[in-house]
Amino acid sequence: MTVRLLLPDELEAELRQIGATRYHNLHPFHRLLHDGKLNQGQVQAWALNRYYYQSQIPAKDATLLARLPTAELRREWRRRLVDHDGDGSVPGGVARWLKLAEGVGLDPALVESTSAILPATRFAVDAYVHFVRDRSVLEAVASSLTEMFSPTIIAERVSGMLAGYAWITPETLAYFTPRLTQAPQDSEFALGFVKKHADTVERQQQVLAALRFKCDVLWSQLDALYLAYVAPGLVPPGAFNPATQS
Amino acid sequence: MTVRLLLPDELEAELRQIGATRYHNLHPFHRLLHDGKLNQGQVQAWALNRYYYQSQIPAKDATLLARLPTAELRREWRRRLVDHDGDGSVPGGVARWLKLAEGVGLDPALVESTSAILPATRFAVDAYVHFVRDRSVLEAVASSLTEMFSPTIIAERVSGMLAGYAWITPETLAYFTPRLTQAPQDSEFALGFVKKHADTVERQQQVLAALRFKCDVLWSQLDALYLAYVAPGLVPPGAFNPATQS
Repeated sequence: MTVRLLLPDELEAELRQIGATRYHNLHPFHRLLHDGKLNQGQVQAWALNRYYYQSQIPAKDATLLARLPTAELRREWRRRLVDHDGDGSVPGGVARWLKLAEGVGLDPALVESTSAILPATRFAVDAYVHFVRDRSVLEAVASSLTEMFSPTIIAERVSGMLAGYAWITPETLAYFTPRLTQAPQDSEFALGFVKKHADTVERQQQVLAALRFKCDVLWSQLDALYLAYVAPGLVPPGAFNPATQS
Repeated sequence: MTVRLLLPDELEAELRQIGATRYHNLHPFHRLLHDGKLNQGQVQAWALNRYYYQSQIPAKDATLLARLPTAELRREWRRRLVDHDGDGSVPGGVARWLKLAEGVGLDPALVESTSAILPATRFAVDAYVHFVRDRSVLEAVASSLTEMFSPTIIAERVSGMLAGYAWITPETLAYFTPRLTQAPQDSEFALGFVKKHADTVERQQQVLAALRFKCDVLWSQLDALYLAYVAPGLVPPGAFNPATQS
């Protein structure tokens, strides 16, 4: 490969370019979701599957936390655990997502069991947790950088879903409100870390590959939802099927 | 759960029932493939992605081999490594699959690089390798039991593909010939092992879940191929695209 060492701001530009071409806001399932074009069963399938992703984020962050070398880094990463798991009084992101799932009409016990998710969801999410466990700390941090792109998609999603689905309330979408401030705080730190420590050609290429990998993790979850619940409607054996729900 | 301890033959019947309802010969992509309904680009996409599965089977088997407690078990499992990696003179399954990929018109260097596979293929195959590494030996052995169902699908596939695609030769499909004797030998051993050692309700349920998991691994690979290359034709960013191949 004829790649050269990038200046930190050039690296950031390349990372942003990956977001501009591979982030899942570009996926047709997201367009349908945000434009109010899905029926309730399809929105349920999204919320049910996405819960598995949410539920594994603390595992992902704790795995990385266990490998971070300094108290400063661990404090920074510990904040993410508080965001997702709460402090016992204010509910965290996982609990808020369960509220969202309940708000769109799902049985929270079914959601929490994760027994009805698409196998592809499980494989993609587990791949993310394993990546963060097995790769370098630099790559693990870089794989979190999709949060750079999430505030836009969240704003779009909340306004689009409130406008498009009469049965969705602002309360149901309360998951997203804290994310609008948490995600930028997280990604600002992670981006600074990556720009500082990706100081060789090899490390820079690893960082770019890590972000592409993470975009694949998000994208393939929407691929699986599209195939099973939009078109052609191939629900895998044993997975959630809105048509047969009581 | 109101499950009871099954007799060994009842356990086998339940395992066969999983195959009858969840094995990937039931997937519409396989029907299209076997009935000669795919174009060459679609068959290439199948061969390219399936190569990644083939290439990881020795990793899967070596991971299990490392955990087997007796020489007898290790010799049995070592045979699988010989089947897949060859002995240096007779080519193994991985090399034969590469021949198949070349025979359907792919650049073998592209195939071996695995750089153009669908992310969902990688996630599913890696999930299988991780399962075999992380679960009990009994569950790992049980996850290989899809081989009980493969002779039928192979016979169907070879005759169907030779009849359906003028550009496919018997030589290209030479991968499958040894599998017709290897798979039954492997699965006979594995089934005997499972029937003997799954001697509690919990272990029997683990064994059944392991086979369902493995069926999911195979099924989700065909799901991803269907979505990207049959309908609606959503090729993920960066993956093999027959339309833009030279």
